[in-house]
Amino acid sequence: MFYHSKELQFNARVSRADPRFARILLEQFGGPNGELKAAMQYFTQAFSCRHPYPDKYDMLMDIATEEFSHLEIVGATIQMLLGNTASQLKETAEAAEISTLLEGTAAKEQYMHEAMFNPQFCNESGGGPTVSDSNGNPWTAAYINANGDLTVDLRSNMAAEGRAKIVYEYLLKFTDDRYVKDTLRFLMTREVAHFQMFEAALDTIQPNFPPGVRQSDPRYSNKYFNMSKGEKSEGPWNKGTSTKLNEEWEYINDPGTYVNKSDGLTQLGDYNTAADQDGLDELERSLSEIRSAEMSVTSPEEYDQWCRYGNRDAP
Amino acid sequence: MFYHSKELQFNARVSRADPRFARILLEQFGGPNGELKAAMQYFTQAFSCRHPYPDKYDMLMDIATEEFSHLEIVGATIQMLLGNTASQLKETAEAAEISTLLEGTAAKEQYMHEAMFNPQFCNESGGGPTVSDSNGNPWTAAYINANGDLTVDLRSNMAAEGRAKIVYEYLLKFTDDRYVKDTLRFLMTREVAHFQMFEAALDTIQPNFPPGVRQSDPRYSNKYFNMSKGEKSEGPWNKGTSTKLNEEWEYINDPGTYVNKSDGLTQLGDYNTAADQDGLDELERSLSEIRSAEMSVTSPEEYDQWCRYGNRDAP
Amino acid sequence: MFYHSKELQFNARVSRADPRFARILLEQFGGPNGELKAAMQYFTQAFSCRHPYPDKYDMLMDIATEEFSHLEIVGATIQMLLGNTASQLKETAEAAEISTLLEGTAAKEQYMHEAMFNPQFCNESGGGPTVSDSNGNPWTAAYINANGDLTVDLRSNMAAEGRAKIVYEYLLKFTDDRYVKDTLRFLMTREVAHFQMFEAALDTIQPNFPPGVRQSDPRYSNKYFNMSKGEKSEGPWNKGTSTKLNEEWEYINDPGTYVNKSDGLTQLGDYNTAADQDGLDELERSLSEIRSAEMSVTSPEEYDQWCRYGNRDAP
Amino acid sequence: MFYHSKELQFNARVSRADPRFARILLEQFGGPNGELKAAMQYFTQAFSCRHPYPDKYDMLMDIATEEFSHLEIVGATIQMLLGNTASQLKETAEAAEISTLLEGTAAKEQYMHEAMFNPQFCNESGGGPTVSDSNGNPWTAAYINANGDLTVDLRSNMAAEGRAKIVYEYLLKFTDDRYVKDTLRFLMTREVAHFQMFEAALDTIQPNFPPGVRQSDPRYSNKYFNMSKGEKSEGPWNKGTSTKLNEEWEYINDPGTYVNKSDGLTQLGDYNTAADQDGLDELERSLSEIRSAEMSVTSPEEYDQWCRYGNRDAP
Amino acid sequence: MFYHSKELQFNARVSRADPRFARILLEQFGGPNGELKAAMQYFTQAFSCRHPYPDKYDMLMDIATEEFSHLEIVGATIQMLLGNTASQLKETAEAAEISTLLEGTAAKEQYMHEAMFNPQFCNESGGGPTVSDSNGNPWTAAYINANGDLTVDLRSNMAAEGRAKIVYEYLLKFTDDRYVKDTLRFLMTREVAHFQMFEAALDTIQPNFPPGVRQSDPRYSNKYFNMSKGEKSEGPWNKGTSTKLNEEWEYINDPGTYVNKSDGLTQLGDYNTAADQDGLDELERSLSEIRSAEMSVTSPEEYDQWCRYGNRDAP
Amino acid sequence: MFYHSKELQFNARVSRADPRFARILLEQFGGPNGELKAAMQYFTQAFSCRHPYPDKYDMLMDIATEEFSHLEIVGATIQMLLGNTASQLKETAEAAEISTLLEGTAAKEQYMHEAMFNPQFCNESGGGPTVSDSNGNPWTAAYINANGDLTVDLRSNMAAEGRAKIVYEYLLKFTDDRYVKDTLRFLMTREVAHFQMFEAALDTIQPNFPPGVRQSDPRYSNKYFNMSKGEKSEGPWNKGTSTKLNEEWEYINDPGTYVNKSDGLTQLGDYNTAADQDGLDELERSLSEIRSAEMSVTSPEEYDQWCRYGNRDAP
Repeated sequence: MFYHSKELQFNARVSRADPRFARILLEQFGGPNGELKAAMQYFTQAFSCRHPYPDKYDMLMDIATEEFSHLEIVGATIQMLLGNTASQLKETAEAAEISTLLEGTAAKEQYMHEAMFNPQFCNESGGGPTVSDSNGNPWTAAYINANGDLTVDLRSNMAAEGRAKIVYEYLLKFTDDRYVKDTLRFLMTREVAHFQMFEAALDTIQPNFPPGVRQSDPRYSNKYFNMSKGEKSEGPWNKGTSTKLNEEWEYINDPGTYVNKSDGLTQLGDYNTAADQDGLDELERSLSEIRSAEMSVTSPEEYDQWCRYGNRDAP
Repeated sequence: MFYHSKELQFNARVSRADPRFARILLEQFGGPNGELKAAMQYFTQAFSCRHPYPDKYDMLMDIATEEFSHLEIVGATIQMLLGNTASQLKETAEAAEISTLLEGTAAKEQYMHEAMFNPQFCNESGGGPTVSDSNGNPWTAAYINANGDLTVDLRSNMAAEGRAKIVYEYLLKFTDDRYVKDTLRFLMTREVAHFQMFEAALDTIQPNFPPGVRQSDPRYSNKYFNMSKGEKSEGPWNKGTSTKLNEEWEYINDPGTYVNKSDGLTQLGDYNTAADQDGLDELERSLSEIRSAEMSVTSPEEYDQWCRYGNRDAP
Repeated sequence: MFYHSKELQFNARVSRADPRFARILLEQFGGPNGELKAAMQYFTQAFSCRHPYPDKYDMLMDIATEEFSHLEIVGATIQMLLGNTASQLKETAEAAEISTLLEGTAAKEQYMHEAMFNPQFCNESGGGPTVSDSNGNPWTAAYINANGDLTVDLRSNMAAEGRAKIVYEYLLKFTDDRYVKDTLRFLMTREVAHFQMFEAALDTIQPNFPPGVRQSDPRYSNKYFNMSKGEKSEGPWNKGTSTKLNEEWEYINDPGTYVNKSDGLTQLGDYNTAADQDGLDELERSLSEIRSAEMSVTSPEEYDQWCRYGNRDAP
Repeated sequence: MFYHSKELQFNARVSRADPRFARILLEQFGGPNGELKAAMQYFTQAFSCRHPYPDKYDMLMDIATEEFSHLEIVGATIQMLLGNTASQLKETAEAAEISTLLEGTAAKEQYMHEAMFNPQFCNESGGGPTVSDSNGNPWTAAYINANGDLTVDLRSNMAAEGRAKIVYEYLLKFTDDRYVKDTLRFLMTREVAHFQMFEAALDTIQPNFPPGVRQSDPRYSNKYFNMSKGEKSEGPWNKGTSTKLNEEWEYINDPGTYVNKSDGLTQLGDYNTAADQDGLDELERSLSEIRSAEMSVTSPEEYDQWCRYGNRDAP
Repeated sequence: MFYHSKELQFNARVSRADPRFARILLEQFGGPNGELKAAMQYFTQAFSCRHPYPDKYDMLMDIATEEFSHLEIVGATIQMLLGNTASQLKETAEAAEISTLLEGTAAKEQYMHEAMFNPQFCNESGGGPTVSDSNGNPWTAAYINANGDLTVDLRSNMAAEGRAKIVYEYLLKFTDDRYVKDTLRFLMTREVAHFQMFEAALDTIQPNFPPGVRQSDPRYSNKYFNMSKGEKSEGPWNKGTSTKLNEEWEYINDPGTYVNKSDGLTQLGDYNTAADQDGLDELERSLSEIRSAEMSVTSPEEYDQWCRYGNRDAP
Repeated sequence: MFYHSKELQFNARVSRADPRFARILLEQFGGPNGELKAAMQYFTQAFSCRHPYPDKYDMLMDIATEEFSHLEIVGATIQMLLGNTASQLKETAEAAEISTLLEGTAAKEQYMHEAMFNPQFCNESGGGPTVSDSNGNPWTAAYINANGDLTVDLRSNMAAEGRAKIVYEYLLKFTDDRYVKDTLRFLMTREVAHFQMFEAALDTIQPNFPPGVRQSDPRYSNKYFNMSKGEKSEGPWNKGTSTKLNEEWEYINDPGTYVNKSDGLTQLGDYNTAADQDGLDELERSLSEIRSAEMSVTSPEEYDQWCRYGNRDAP
């Protein structure tokens, strides 16, 4: 169950109305890397952790709830940045027509002009935030990544926090309002904090690579295909040992010939003798047993229940 | 700021796994009339009420927060209905291949077959809810209606609650699990309660029709155009007096001729003598002043602030 | 079957080209509360009324057809507001390059600059309307609400008319072209008229609350959950009797405690003694019989047919 | 202005309910090549033809209006194919629970099971059509092609009619209801008729290739780049003369070398001596003048008007 | 398998940064008629041609691959047009705040202002292209037409090339950078070349009209319904013989009466005596056999394989 | 520039047609974590690396090109799994009607029934792949993450590879075709390989945390807010030192009180004395200079050029 407190987590303030920045800031209200995306992503991931991993459930819901609180901070800031847009839209006197004013120079009406960069502030939302990105695309759940496996989900979250961080970094370039900057710096920093929380949580799950249960096929895990002609570059991504599996990279310089000779990579013979196929199989088998058991739900006698209500001791 | 409590608002239970109903129930998790839509709609509308209408802000945030809590109930129910899907997806032993099992008849695997009605439970979400409707369409903010005017928004909300109610009514036809039915009836009833809350709030705003500030044009507000040929029907929508403005309906039997004769409705002459144009103008003017003043934000001396932090007394 | 007459329902005129307003006006061509949404919503709802409620079918098709006619008026106005955009796009002479002209001051080319607020007027539609909102989002059927129950659909329509009305009200702020204003006022007023038609139609269906057939659960229908902390407000939405069911509102001040004590609202004991559960059950039963019978289609002997062609007397 | 007649253009009938085919048929109600797409495409294209090409405007509006009439036929057929779905959804008696019935064998309930192939027939639309394709994707204006140039738009329309035709052809495989087949054959044939209408209209515009005004660059118009290695094929698309410009195809066997030698195709020297650059320039210039003049709107003295109302002789 | 060469197919250059044109040019990167749409459309169509029509497969993959190469050209041009946007976003010094600079007049910062026409260049992509159209709508596969029948797909492609051509034509109006114009002319011309390739390929398939296998119904293929009232126009689309089937057009002046008299077009009697129904049936039958056989896949003994690897001789 | 070779990178085979698995496999053709997403993500990211980071550009284009090659493998497999769907759609003989056959038991037609799980294989694509996920949602560029900063983009890619890997892992549960499994294992393994390539590339960029240039605010980077009530959990994400910045986690047990006392976190006083604000500022300043310089494009004398054509030595 959620509760709401009328006080914001951070004391959001603005020096003056700035509808143009209100539009740009929408990116973090309803954009692909914004607060709603983060909140809904962690909230959705949490369902499958509720019983098997109560500590991760706790963390995901803490952070999800904080992101909803950040969504509120961003929305409040946009509302304040839109200033008197809402009020002006209620004026019906002829003299107040916007298009007339725009050719005038009355400074106090200037922000209406700016609001037109996003006309939906004026003709749809009536001077409040819209659940869209800064180009007006409505938020879509296509932004959410939730795949029912923590070794995947936590990595998705680290990446998501990275993206949210860089967007706040970019946004800081587009305002010189010190109060708005304070808010943006707070929000940006929290992404940095969350990143580290997710990373720490991932570290507690071992092994966590490859993500999931199935092991990779050593015939294919150590090859770098040079698919793009022209100048080539060497780096630890195609030379030396790989970061996680510690296999030696094999650089396939001419993939066409290589693929043809091996009948489409199916006839590779002895290729990666360092790999221990039996060990991999055994690892996969035992990991499968562990993970499957963790996720397993005992068939309820009478019913399955989410919370501890009544005299049941679940979950 | 939001908080979360691990206990659900309603003690959601399921008798047994039922992946097929899990799919159908998605409609209220991420569908057009589902809980996320309701929660985000009221939450978004609340921003523009924060200062001018603190009582409505309180109500909108109370109900928005309850809807987030309902979203959690629906998600928890879906997770329980999916039963061991997540666990089975972690099994890698050859014998457990699903397609093999589907040709067998082992009843305990039957639900996997049913889960395939929505393959993304299996190949994307790993056995948890997806933020989509029952056909797999990702939730979109295009479902949200928030127009910055309470006489409009509250009506949008009443309609939204009506739709949410009927979807729960339909859903009750597709399960015979008594615990799931208890949950659905609770959720369905809350829509009925919310409907009445929004209606009561609308009643406190007077006048509230026409919605907004501008008055309608009496030349056009009392006409019914008979645009569709064939059998005609009479009813209070085209005969007698109109529900709100109490004008006499004028039935235009042959719109083509009528429109041509009036130069595209621009030459209507004296048509609706009951209407008091001057009175309408005056009403519009005074309403505009009131509403515009209500929404007006006094230019902050130093800064604008959302909450009461520090020694300011806002909002 | 539809017909088209080349004359518009309203004599749409514009004083001069104004591509900027053309862009803003797109909101009512292909936006979420625009004419296409209204037309398609009523048209879609009408299918399920064809046989059971021929009078409502007649009304829905009359209004749907009028909305298609309004869509045409809006499109024609946008086309006129775009002025010579189409013609200029056909000019290939070097001197006519737009980017050059924009740095010049030739007033007659100014509107090209303005057209660039929505570049798709120039690089996609070739100087005509696009079926999108004012931010360029393509129209989507996600805007449509049609749920196969008139007590729901008519309320959706009233809300939709309210939203369309307020958008026209907002649009009136952004033009001072008297002819365009005439058109906008006509269109705005028709939304007011349609609202009242739908309301009158809803009144003829009794009972119409709760929408649909199922009755609400009296344990949950009269409670107001105070989910948001901080200053509280009282109003008829949480105090006194509810608007439709006339139950006494019960204000749950501390939902957390209340929910925990009642085992997630499942152990509420005697709570709402005013409610007559037997009466509700009986009402639901009889209503179900009536509505189900109304919608019932007799199994056709040879075939089912939509119209009265031939010697059948359907519908 | 549109009108509606209650009689369908074609006497749509069904032998029996078939919810499964209802779902598949949705493809032509709200799918990418369905009737709504066609209707809205031609309707939108028509705006820019209203004044410059009144004969094409007449044709586009005739066909658009017919497509709206076909949309109605498809919707009516879906409604009939859904049979008693709507009625059953109104039944609240416990015995009528669907999930119970599905395990029974009562033949009269079988169609409910089938309806669940598209659960939104049950939990959203209440037993009527949804404005979506057969997978439940809501219709989007992204399907519409309207580019403000008849030599382009008419080709878009010919292709659209071809696609609509093949979808009806495929649909005929999935029903053996002779009445439904009659309807599908009618609709399929009309696409064939419309294709020819658009082709005839295109033929009246000369020259119509390349589409638009600008002529192609003879350095690049006659080259075929062999971008895909492996077996090669010869055909009139890379050998002989091209269909419209009658240039000799030049087959670039090794694009990499060719491109490098020519500094990225910028140093091609004398390459296509058959082409008459001066003639092309002259053609483009004169065509630009003609087309630009056709589309040109004379600046209105008082106002621009869409129809002939009043004593103006426009359009 | 694809390969990449670092050299572009065309030597794309820009004279100077121009973020505003970068935004407009996005239309051909991620817009409905842009290069990604073309590439993915032909690539997708090619799958069903691989075995039955290897020559068409070769052509489709050649052109698809060229379109991917054009996508790269457009993206590279946008990157160059955005100039130092990326670099400036990395500057954190206070003096560099954009909103300050916008009120200044420093010419070297002017392009930042222009970049704000599409704020996502700044707050999302960090100064690179986004996979969207010029209004910021993300690319969607709804743009793709691939229907598994070459007589349809090739026509879709001709139309698509026509649209891509006109968009480039329009874009040429919005830049005076001679290097960018060179690139646009190259790309525009290639659409003209591709159009002719697809047309030539279509010509090799006979008969190719009606598209697909099923023949049209002569009762409905020769009728023109005059659905729109007002001035009428005659043209070869409603008078004379039709372009492909060479039937005489029958002009239905009053569709309402005609439809009613014929019981919804089902009682047309002898109407089109020129048509040879038996011949049509025979044609359809034989065509069905041919096309079905062409597409038929012989059931593999051991397995089906895409390429010629190993000692199989497929495809 | 891209090239295509007709041989697949991997020798994709199928034992028999299986339209049901074809549908599920669509998830990796046009789904959110599928091959098209990966290919387009890396391809788009590459543009901004072309000049500043040629080695990363090389790697991104190598992997992007390999992902396009994987997309082809998935598409080819789907085409083979659909077997004779295309051929059967061309049959017009009455006896072949699908709905008849579905009630029969002819095993050879069984797969047609299964194909109907995704009706668009039958009524749109004509028996080939559609660019959508397994629920039919068209692919959207909203899946792409490209933010113009390698410390962010490479993390997005690692997460994306993790998701793609788990989807292949899940897919392996739904087929027992050994050839299809071989293909899936190859594709799954390549995601593991790519993950490690991206990780290695990220390691070469130092510092890479926080992502981007701006440093975090030490007042907010070390706090864990306990936003969700009920049982609490401890872990390295809220106790001990943080993973990257090595700050001591501060657990805020009662955020409401904490936030109120600190005036919305603005009055925190001395809180994190370990942090060196001056050091952070200096780090940010120097990093900003480096990164800004790296991305900087020298103003071209005559023009900017993407490749090395001609006598320029760029890039």
